[in-house]
Amino acid sequence: MEVLGALDVAELAAAFAHLPVFPVFDLGYFVVSILYLKYEKGAVELSRQSPFASWVVAMLYCFGSYILADLLLGEAPIDYFSNNSSVLLATAVWYLTFYCPLNLFYKCVTFLPVKLIFVAMKEVVRVRKIAAGVHHAHHHYHQGWLIMVVIGFVKGSGVALMSNFEQLLRGVWKPETNEFLHMTFPSKASLYGAILFTLQQTHWMPISKDSLIFFFTLFMISCKVFMTASHSHGSPFAPVEGVLCPILFGSVPPGHD
Amino acid sequence: MEVLGALDVAELAAAFAHLPVFPVFDLGYFVVSILYLKYEKGAVELSRQSPFASWVVAMLYCFGSYILADLLLGEAPIDYFSNNSSVLLATAVWYLTFYCPLNLFYKCVTFLPVKLIFVAMKEVVRVRKIAAGVHHAHHHYHQGWLIMVVIGFVKGSGVALMSNFEQLLRGVWKPETNEFLHMTFPSKASLYGAILFTLQQTHWMPISKDSLIFFFTLFMISCKVFMTASHSHGSPFAPVEGVLCPILFGSVPPGHD
Amino acid sequence: MEVLGALDVAELAAAFAHLPVFPVFDLGYFVVSILYLKYEKGAVELSRQSPFASWVVAMLYCFGSYILADLLLGEAPIDYFSNNSSVLLATAVWYLTFYCPLNLFYKCVTFLPVKLIFVAMKEVVRVRKIAAGVHHAHHHYHQGWLIMVVIGFVKGSGVALMSNFEQLLRGVWKPETNEFLHMTFPSKASLYGAILFTLQQTHWMPISKDSLIFFFTLFMISCKVFMTASHSHGSPFAPVEGVLCPILFGSVPPGHD
Repeated sequence: MEVLGALDVAELAAAFAHLPVFPVFDLGYFVVSILYLKYEKGAVELSRQSPFASWVVAMLYCFGSYILADLLLGEAPIDYFSNNSSVLLATAVWYLTFYCPLNLFYKCVTFLPVKLIFVAMKEVVRVRKIAAGVHHAHHHYHQGWLIMVVIGFVKGSGVALMSNFEQLLRGVWKPETNEFLHMTFPSKASLYGAILFTLQQTHWMPISKDSLIFFFTLFMISCKVFMTASHSHGSPFAPVEGVLCPILFGSVPPGHD
Repeated sequence: MEVLGALDVAELAAAFAHLPVFPVFDLGYFVVSILYLKYEKGAVELSRQSPFASWVVAMLYCFGSYILADLLLGEAPIDYFSNNSSVLLATAVWYLTFYCPLNLFYKCVTFLPVKLIFVAMKEVVRVRKIAAGVHHAHHHYHQGWLIMVVIGFVKGSGVALMSNFEQLLRGVWKPETNEFLHMTFPSKASLYGAILFTLQQTHWMPISKDSLIFFFTLFMISCKVFMTASHSHGSPFAPVEGVLCPILFGSVPPGHD
Repeated sequence: MEVLGALDVAELAAAFAHLPVFPVFDLGYFVVSILYLKYEKGAVELSRQSPFASWVVAMLYCFGSYILADLLLGEAPIDYFSNNSSVLLATAVWYLTFYCPLNLFYKCVTFLPVKLIFVAMKEVVRVRKIAAGVHHAHHHYHQGWLIMVVIGFVKGSGVALMSNFEQLLRGVWKPETNEFLHMTFPSKASLYGAILFTLQQTHWMPISKDSLIFFFTLFMISCKVFMTASHSHGSPFAPVEGVLCPILFGSVPPGHD
């Protein structure tokens, strides 16, 4: 019975890991990303005054992770934009989010049950990106543990890591903070996820990649759906960090006091 | 007779499209670019206090389009600086513009008839750069329509797209605006030109590249010479945008009210 | 006797130029670089509040020159991070500098005689980097004199050239100044050194590379050790610049009045 159960989970994980993300899950990713853009102060005014700048920023929100990862690996940062269908889908989502008559699209996707589904879909894409990033970096640098972690981290965090420059495009400048100074949950989770996937890729962690994708996706979905539903900004990593940081760095990370 | 006329135009366009831009037209490009740099507030003081920074900024003004396009395509952003003669010519223009005794060079090139000739020459180079940019991107990404447009746009707009960073080099910081938020005529024209050249390159527009270069150059020269002569900042695209923007984006672009 | 002396110097220079820089000299480089980071206002607070950001900044201080040079040559800016042992060594130095109990490590390395040795070691690495940068650029661009100078300059100056962005990572923003506007001695020396190594590489200067490395290292060590010991910020280039600048650029560089 237990062998059967294990087989089932492995098969389920394998099936899940081979589900194509385009177009359905990517749609969720684009919807949630551009929704977060619309929540930014001044984003709606920007879409009225300068649709071109608004579109450029929206593309950064949707494809920032590819741009950053390609940049770090010395490839063309514009490379992903050769996927015309992805860009078209993201553009459609951007257009509907900002310019749909009666704000209908926005009202639909921010209806909580719908939004939670999209949030879950976004996490599916995020975990896949982390795994693909680590794999891609491993392909270039077989012994480059750190590079694998960095590329996985960047693929998971995306536009957050270049928030200063994304804001600058919108005419906003907040030099006093950035994602490195105050890491949000998705970035931290991407970092820890990238470490896990790097351990898996270099055979230090005895688990199949499919299973890791499956379980890490479950973890991310649970956390993000719970946080979105409860409007919480707490981090599930806080207890561990609260123990480790004082020992390692003689300090308590911000938000723990 | 008409066939003859058509032949003549086609031949003229072909001859024009094969005129080498170096050194004569490039000279016009450098003169006008560095003139615009000298118009910038604080640029003359900078040339006195820090000639090195002034030279670096001048090089960005002259070669910014190559730097940006190479960066986006994952090539060495410094690549174009292997053209020693171009760099030497640009350096000579920079030196004469800022340090010529009695400000003689500046006085000559800002004499309106002379300046208009240089302005026209700059547009010749700009259109060639757009065409070359689209062609170059097409070589890398055969189906990458968007990439072709972006590279053509970047090759036409040049330093304007990185004005924030160019200013930063001079110790000036204006985060509240950039070329994406308030597009100037040359950038807009480069964008529309890049779209036209992309349509031509992908055989959606039944016109030869030589003819497109010829007619688009004529259009750019007329606009820029007229605008320079009349100190106008109006845009010939304003009427079309004034009709399309309210329909597409429910808004009137800035400067139309 | 004189031939013997010449032989001795040549042999000494050759032996010196083939000394491996890792790990001993690199250690000096990392210690002094991260020491300068700790001197920066707010760096200690940053290390308490956000160890991750502090580590990222420390890596920029240690490997900024590789990142910039790779970026300019179109290679992966993260490439050098595949040297796991270098990164581990730099991380250890960062950890000890900021978190060592009783601040013991900091107290040891800032003890003047010890510090002067590390400063000297850092200059050994700097000159090697300049030479390697020029050589590397020459490999890509045989006629690219300017590119050789730029890459050598960047390899010698390192993080100083991206100080604005390094500060931004720490939440600090000082747009009114940068290394191009107010060049410090190490940057100027790197620039002049890069010019010398480029002349050597292109056979315009009849001296072996080993000898140039040897003598330029001696020069850099003398200057920096003297400047560090005497807390001086004067530049040995000031007299020459004081003569040349007024002739070439009609101005006196800042700090000369």
